[in-house]
Amino acid sequence: MAASAARSRRETRGTPSKARADRRPARRARRARAPVTGPAYITRRIPTYELVSAEGLALIETHAERILKEIGIEFRGDEEALRLFREAGAEVKGPRVRFEPGQVRALCGTAPRSFTQVARNPERSVVIGGGNTVFSPAYGAPFVRDLEGGRRYGTLEDFANFVKLAYLSPWLHHSGGTICEPVDIPVNKRHLDMVYAHMRWSDRAFMGSVTAPERAADSIEMCRILFGAGFVEENCVILGNVNVNSPLVYDDVMSGVLRSYAAANQATVVVPFILGGAMGPVTPAGTIAQAHAEALVGVALTQLVRPGAPAIYGNFLSSMSLRSGAPTFGTPEPALAYIAVGQLARRAGLPVRVGGALTASKVADGQAMQESADSMMPAILGGANFILHSAGWLEGGLSMGYEKFVLDCDRLGMLHVFMKGLALDDNAFAMDAFHETGPAEHFLGTAHTMANYETAYYEPPLADCKSFEQWRDEGEKDSLQRASQRWRELLAGYEAPAIDAGVDEALRAFIAERKGAMPDMWH
Amino acid sequence: MAASAARSRRETRGTPSKARADRRPARRARRARAPVTGPAYITRRIPTYELVSAEGLALIETHAERILKEIGIEFRGDEEALRLFREAGAEVKGPRVRFEPGQVRALCGTAPRSFTQVARNPERSVVIGGGNTVFSPAYGAPFVRDLEGGRRYGTLEDFANFVKLAYLSPWLHHSGGTICEPVDIPVNKRHLDMVYAHMRWSDRAFMGSVTAPERAADSIEMCRILFGAGFVEENCVILGNVNVNSPLVYDDVMSGVLRSYAAANQATVVVPFILGGAMGPVTPAGTIAQAHAEALVGVALTQLVRPGAPAIYGNFLSSMSLRSGAPTFGTPEPALAYIAVGQLARRAGLPVRVGGALTASKVADGQAMQESADSMMPAILGGANFILHSAGWLEGGLSMGYEKFVLDCDRLGMLHVFMKGLALDDNAFAMDAFHETGPAEHFLGTAHTMANYETAYYEPPLADCKSFEQWRDEGEKDSLQRASQRWRELLAGYEAPAIDAGVDEALRAFIAERKGAMPDMWH
Repeated sequence: MAASAARSRRETRGTPSKARADRRPARRARRARAPVTGPAYITRRIPTYELVSAEGLALIETHAERILKEIGIEFRGDEEALRLFREAGAEVKGPRVRFEPGQVRALCGTAPRSFTQVARNPERSVVIGGGNTVFSPAYGAPFVRDLEGGRRYGTLEDFANFVKLAYLSPWLHHSGGTICEPVDIPVNKRHLDMVYAHMRWSDRAFMGSVTAPERAADSIEMCRILFGAGFVEENCVILGNVNVNSPLVYDDVMSGVLRSYAAANQATVVVPFILGGAMGPVTPAGTIAQAHAEALVGVALTQLVRPGAPAIYGNFLSSMSLRSGAPTFGTPEPALAYIAVGQLARRAGLPVRVGGALTASKVADGQAMQESADSMMPAILGGANFILHSAGWLEGGLSMGYEKFVLDCDRLGMLHVFMKGLALDDNAFAMDAFHETGPAEHFLGTAHTMANYETAYYEPPLADCKSFEQWRDEGEKDSLQRASQRWRELLAGYEAPAIDAGVDEALRAFIAERKGAMPDMWH
Repeated sequence: MAASAARSRRETRGTPSKARADRRPARRARRARAPVTGPAYITRRIPTYELVSAEGLALIETHAERILKEIGIEFRGDEEALRLFREAGAEVKGPRVRFEPGQVRALCGTAPRSFTQVARNPERSVVIGGGNTVFSPAYGAPFVRDLEGGRRYGTLEDFANFVKLAYLSPWLHHSGGTICEPVDIPVNKRHLDMVYAHMRWSDRAFMGSVTAPERAADSIEMCRILFGAGFVEENCVILGNVNVNSPLVYDDVMSGVLRSYAAANQATVVVPFILGGAMGPVTPAGTIAQAHAEALVGVALTQLVRPGAPAIYGNFLSSMSLRSGAPTFGTPEPALAYIAVGQLARRAGLPVRVGGALTASKVADGQAMQESADSMMPAILGGANFILHSAGWLEGGLSMGYEKFVLDCDRLGMLHVFMKGLALDDNAFAMDAFHETGPAEHFLGTAHTMANYETAYYEPPLADCKSFEQWRDEGEKDSLQRASQRWRELLAGYEAPAIDAGVDEALRAFIAERKGAMPDMWH
């Protein structure tokens, strides 16, 4: 993956106009560089799974266009967005915007198929789009959970812990955003501490605030301090995850935040968030068509704000329990949808965010790990480029689990190998080993085995494949108990990446100034 | 699936020559019929995942042919098998048999692409091959495990319990074979009790003994009592799972058992059993090529014994722990291999057995369910036709878990939905619901939701998607604890399918006679 990292740097920093802005992060990066043990991101060497035929995909697109023409979509309280759509030729009546078939897709045409999000350690910059996949931690939980402490509200210390655990994993590529809510910090100030934690305790790419346009602006301003204002103007250094108020509404906060990021040339992840049967039809095809319409309209708005601004076609669909009306995860209907969504995004020429290690389970038990596997694999098969919620998610997103986090990271390592595909070179076919052995003779001692065994198989550290007797004598620990030990060991061994003292001071001064200018708000 | 069940009956029993033989099972079936709550088998409506290109597959085939020509394969102690291969034109020197490129594949040409295994309840007959998938329980564990009793040797009572649990699951299609070893019965007699348990406590298709040719013969003889000798001559009613003594050896028991089943027109599942690095190369491509060679040679032998006899191209590959040398499961290398194996079998025109819900974990924890998910999904994507070890497997096959069994069955239900694919009809697109609602309006009360919600989403019974508070107040049970309660409830509610009293008596008499003719052997 060294080649990929190098390429990502070239793409980001190769043009002469950027040379000056580049100096600061490059210098900083040399000091901050942590041992790189995993790839910066995954370059897929497996094909996508073409679940739905081209005719089927065209049918979904047609229904999305019908929704946008016959029903339309509303931008509530955002006159600027309505103005942009009106000028682009859409039919605007009150907050309702309607589009002719093909119109929205054409507006998305200036969005890049792929873009680089630069990390403060340039070896950790990620390319989002095309044949690449980026894993990012879970996002948004108010609670955290660990085996000993149980479930409790998240704090800034928990937040920093998860940033550190993500930094320590060779199989995550991104530091994420609101990994958990630090509810010990006022709601109008915590975005400053969260962005700082990503910048200070990790050297990876990260996400900014989306809870208010001014908080998005603060997030971007902190990036200007870290990377330099000129660099930020020319490069994507932060992502904002913008959820659509499905069905078919963007409120002024969401569209305002989206416009803030786009105007600053930063990336938005546009995410229809649909619980089928509630915020969309109870049948997946209708929900997919709706989500397709909603996502494309959001991407179109980014392009009206600033043509060429990076944007990710996102999607978050879940099914519903017939017993309780609660969202369910790891079920087959969203799995099918995630694969189809990947196909639709490719046809639209946009990077796609879909899937994740999702579960409704309260603890990292069998249900949690199975549901997570079943939510993640369709994203892999569907060619997802950015996978939020790759590690830690519990309880439908209400809780961030320490044990779940490290268990999920182990599986991400396996997916790295899976996405390399099957090697079919002469070494892989091992004909020499067949000649060296013969019928009934074991391969353990062959030259081929000796040359290959250290790299042949991925073995997740938390999986137990010992003999029953050894496992029993070591205390019959299940994977949850082993994970509990593991995250504590990881945190104990954490060392922060270096940061330029002047930059750190400037960041802290900015935060202090912003906090001083606001009263504490707790709701 | 009613149509599929009907078609399976027609295929099996539609020819005039079989009319007489058909009467007995049909009459019996009317009495034995249990409430059918799940489909007899799955007719896939999703495409296979084409992981490896046609060129890559041809390269694997070429290497398999090189192995068979340059190294060859041994049939040890089976003069009849050697004679058959010699007469078919292979080069035979001592036990070693070598083949020219294309020769083995040509010999497999008479094997059916698809065949029906008739169950005593004809609504439960399964079609193995083509676009169909059949789920069968785990096979071969000496130990059983449940949450309260822990791990212990399996008994005939455990065996019967698992036959009953499989019978009760709407998501299994097959009763399996040696679900666990009933070690309380002498080793030379237990096959009689196992086959009887499948016949008596279930009405589904099942597998016979493979531990000795005479035990295979006993298994087939019991089928003649149950189905009628003429019927058995014309129809497949039993499967034998024959493991190759990899690398590149069939011992006389395995090839003898294979010949017994084929001669009786019954199906063999030919299974190279390879721990990569030990019984095959440590790199997957070489292992796949070896397994391809081994499987095709076994299928070729069935066709030399009796052209047209049903056979399944099987495969069991696992990776290896670098820490301990133990087999590992749910890892990415076998996952890639399973998909490629499915592609190879389709090119060879043979039904394929691959995958299963495999794990190295000792208990049904997060590791177990994740590894099982990751071992099963590639089989689904690869188009596997017969999936042994679909439920219950623990500890690398050493232990059969009661809780694991019911948890796995839940996931099989999800896979049923996944394999139906994405509906893209007018109802699925729900345009009426969009018109009935509008931006920001929920879909819960729409006519479309009302008409569809009961069947819209699969919800696995053991998954908990309740609120945290409800889950906490109900005792914070994890999925393992819920599963423990579930299997006990299922067994308590079990009712045996009816069986013809005369047939039952004849089966018992046969068993008594056979047991009386042998001393007890315990090893």
